[in-house]
Amino acid sequence: MRVLGLDPGLRRTGWGVIEAEGSRLVHLANGAIESDDKLSTAERLVQLHDGLSNVIAEYAPAEAAVEETLVNKNAKSTLKLGVARGVVLLVPARAGLPVAQYLPMIVKKAVVGTGHAAKDQVNMMVGRLLPGCGIESPDAADALAVAICHAHHAATGRQWTAAAGTGGGRRRT
Amino acid sequence: MRVLGLDPGLRRTGWGVIEAEGSRLVHLANGAIESDDKLSTAERLVQLHDGLSNVIAEYAPAEAAVEETLVNKNAKSTLKLGVARGVVLLVPARAGLPVAQYLPMIVKKAVVGTGHAAKDQVNMMVGRLLPGCGIESPDAADALAVAICHAHHAATGRQWTAAAGTGGGRRRT
Repeated sequence: MRVLGLDPGLRRTGWGVIEAEGSRLVHLANGAIESDDKLSTAERLVQLHDGLSNVIAEYAPAEAAVEETLVNKNAKSTLKLGVARGVVLLVPARAGLPVAQYLPMIVKKAVVGTGHAAKDQVNMMVGRLLPGCGIESPDAADALAVAICHAHHAATGRQWTAAAGTGGGRRRT
Repeated sequence: MRVLGLDPGLRRTGWGVIEAEGSRLVHLANGAIESDDKLSTAERLVQLHDGLSNVIAEYAPAEAAVEETLVNKNAKSTLKLGVARGVVLLVPARAGLPVAQYLPMIVKKAVVGTGHAAKDQVNMMVGRLLPGCGIESPDAADALAVAICHAHHAATGRQWTAAAGTGGGRRRT
């Protein structure tokens, strides 16, 4: 299964594509889509839309997973993150991909083994789990982490389904 | 100039189309796009995208104006509004329309004459300014109000531009 991980942001949206075959993970590509902060929000969202559409067209992932960040700083920055997330959820869904969302704690737990790991630890483990991935930026590392998390949960979900006929631990929100 | 006004929301996004010829306003259509809350957020955003694309295809507006609500209730509801706004800004921008944003206070001032008008007053004035508009819902009334506001600012901007070579009062954020 080919998974596209996404870490939404209006200025930079990180992305990472991995191939998951059972518990074996292979890195395919990672990067970040930047928007020009001299443009209007609407125009920046078009840049984000187009960049993300190109990634999906080039790597043809089967599923997408998005980091579900909750920002509490202030309403304005939360709204800014929200508009970017809206486009980041929309584009893969329009392309027919199932889109899962994972809280940062769940991503950390899947990658490092604890939900309270530091950012550096997560990045280091992403590098270990995907040898030779050559991470482009911290946003891309976060995107690869959420892709790894999704692959992990999908594999676990399939085991559970096989064992007990129940669904996986993935949230659909 | 044909203006599409939009009041974003994940559950319901209000829309309204008016034709503005100088200070003369004519109502064309209004309504709301609803999303199914039993679906995932990503799937609901696709419904919002498709509904909004249909409105733009049917009424071919030249410009779009979006209400710029700031919610302070909590991060979760702000983020929910944000994802809807992301799609509401994206769709007209992708269709090549300039997209303006107006704070609720500016919309109220344009429609009622004061930035602190009650919601009922705004709705009543929308009905007076657009005789026979048959407002579909409160969201649609808010959308028509922001369209009226945009028409007003665009007309004022053109007068200013003609008089002094300066731009209008429209915010591009």
